[in-house]
Amino acid sequence: MTNLLSNITPTLLMGPGPSCVFDEVYAALARPTLGHLDPYFISIMDGIKTHLQTVIGTKNNVTLPMSGTGSAGMETCFVNLIEKGDKVLVLTNGVFGKRMEDIAARLGAIVDVLECEWGTAFVPANVEEQLQKHGPYSLVAIVHAETSTGVCNPVQAIGKLVKSTGALFLVDCVTSLGGMPVTMDAWQVDALYSGTQKCLSCPPGLSPVSFSEQAVAKLLARKTKVPNWYLDLSMIINYWEGKTRAYHHTAPINMLYGLYAALDCVLQEGLPAVYERHLAVHKQLIAGLEKLGLAMYVQPEHRLPMLNTITLPAGVDEAKVRQRLLREHSIEIGAGLGPLAGKIWRIGLMGHTARAHNVEKVLAALAACIA
Amino acid sequence: MTNLLSNITPTLLMGPGPSCVFDEVYAALARPTLGHLDPYFISIMDGIKTHLQTVIGTKNNVTLPMSGTGSAGMETCFVNLIEKGDKVLVLTNGVFGKRMEDIAARLGAIVDVLECEWGTAFVPANVEEQLQKHGPYSLVAIVHAETSTGVCNPVQAIGKLVKSTGALFLVDCVTSLGGMPVTMDAWQVDALYSGTQKCLSCPPGLSPVSFSEQAVAKLLARKTKVPNWYLDLSMIINYWEGKTRAYHHTAPINMLYGLYAALDCVLQEGLPAVYERHLAVHKQLIAGLEKLGLAMYVQPEHRLPMLNTITLPAGVDEAKVRQRLLREHSIEIGAGLGPLAGKIWRIGLMGHTARAHNVEKVLAALAACIA
Repeated sequence: MTNLLSNITPTLLMGPGPSCVFDEVYAALARPTLGHLDPYFISIMDGIKTHLQTVIGTKNNVTLPMSGTGSAGMETCFVNLIEKGDKVLVLTNGVFGKRMEDIAARLGAIVDVLECEWGTAFVPANVEEQLQKHGPYSLVAIVHAETSTGVCNPVQAIGKLVKSTGALFLVDCVTSLGGMPVTMDAWQVDALYSGTQKCLSCPPGLSPVSFSEQAVAKLLARKTKVPNWYLDLSMIINYWEGKTRAYHHTAPINMLYGLYAALDCVLQEGLPAVYERHLAVHKQLIAGLEKLGLAMYVQPEHRLPMLNTITLPAGVDEAKVRQRLLREHSIEIGAGLGPLAGKIWRIGLMGHTARAHNVEKVLAALAACIA
Repeated sequence: MTNLLSNITPTLLMGPGPSCVFDEVYAALARPTLGHLDPYFISIMDGIKTHLQTVIGTKNNVTLPMSGTGSAGMETCFVNLIEKGDKVLVLTNGVFGKRMEDIAARLGAIVDVLECEWGTAFVPANVEEQLQKHGPYSLVAIVHAETSTGVCNPVQAIGKLVKSTGALFLVDCVTSLGGMPVTMDAWQVDALYSGTQKCLSCPPGLSPVSFSEQAVAKLLARKTKVPNWYLDLSMIINYWEGKTRAYHHTAPINMLYGLYAALDCVLQEGLPAVYERHLAVHKQLIAGLEKLGLAMYVQPEHRLPMLNTITLPAGVDEAKVRQRLLREHSIEIGAGLGPLAGKIWRIGLMGHTARAHNVEKVLAALAACIA
């Protein structure tokens, strides 16, 4: 082991992700590498698929981790489901909605954007009005848990409106999956992607994706090839499904071990218990922050349990506080992103990080650093 | 640890990749996850860059691992360097050349293909003729070490011809890097990509990429945005370079630890010693195969040390032999790919796999299975 790696200081990861990694996941990452066509490895792939279906709340056959980080999942959904000239509506209230706009536009979609104020959640009636006045759309996309603002969007209510128009409904669950209820089928979501480094408590590197039958039908009915070979689901499906298991690209074997172990930890604890734990530490954090005189950025009814945004107190050098937290307390919290830089902090309570003793630690450290 | 993961049988990986992983790399994968903007993690990124420059033989500032497997590196080079209507020449003599054609065509390039017989290497004079008759091209692409056939293409000689026309020269070094000399700058290569799971003996999941100044200039002079957000180097550079380290996507932290450790192992041993070791086991393998009455598929002067293709002996059920090797001896070797399925076996001697005792093992096991 080189000094550079042996000198890594274990850090309490309370930013917007990565989160603290389960011990079981670290152990899994170091298991012996197998070939990507080894029948035993394929049985692990099958295990990942079944676990993912449970955590995502779907029976979709096309449910698999893409070989890239969460943004590769975003790219996967758009590049497979959009053809040039398709009319797309992106509902934006944060950085990750903006990213969706960018990706869709690069693919030649006609992109309409409905934006609501950052830090607030979408009101379904406004989405309904947009759909009626400017639709129909081929696809409507929204972020469930906006990591940049800490806002939870009402995906289920919006899904009903979108599906009544026949459009595909695409939802970013990068931050929400494994930390609060996500029920893809019940919410009528057609394409969903997530990341491993948030509430699943696996290191970054993979992006779980699931496609409904309607989404798969749209993919298979394309007039043009998917303009991205690496993320072309029409080929990748053949590696994850069926008997042939045709080689597409060499799967990231050890990261997939890690994901399997992470999903297993979540399901061993049980989804209801996991969600309850996230909610409990969220409440604990808010109570503690209020005692420190710090105010939350988002109204109570729209707050995410796993991503807490805090309005910066006046006169505080926010970067210096984060630096001190990291250097003196080995705790990482997040800065504001994009237009919210210098306006908020972001404290993540994701997966293995979401423990009462971690909340106590960050509150004590924050108190020391802003004093 | 679940049974599924604890029951993995350690396997001698002698296929076309993944190869056996260094112990140091397994240990690195399990080091504590840091945030992707943590200054200490950034120092590891800097270490990776310096190590990569040495192994690739380049001073290119833009030298970094992309967050995907080798094929993501292929996609990265094409999607950043090609704009719709660009004239591209792909030199094809195997599956990975075909993949290049596919990717370039999806991006709207005008793709010319010069193909030579699979199992043989390109003759520079034929490339010269193509360039003179059908050029000029915006970009010319070739695979250095064709993993599907075991052939080494004369990249240096072809580079001279390509560069005299002013075209960008793109080379796939997925299988060659770290197992035989690769000197990007001396060979006048403008864009190079590789993978971690071959001679670097790290699990699959990352793709080292390097761009020359001419390649970066082409990227920065694009008239259109890179049509792939996830692989857009014009943005990713800002995370890997300079003082700002602007967030693009969350880097695959633990895989990057693994890559750093792998590069460190290679450089500790020393590149000349590493190349010599690959060559020595290659000779050992061939001598042993000949004793078994098995014939090599490629002529001696074009053989790759790390990927050995063997013509199937008559009357052998090749899949059954591979199954027996895996089940009875825990050794994985590769089948033929594409048109070579059912015609060859592929034995990889890559990185940590390239040891004399492993060659002895596979020879003994093969002898038992084909008897």
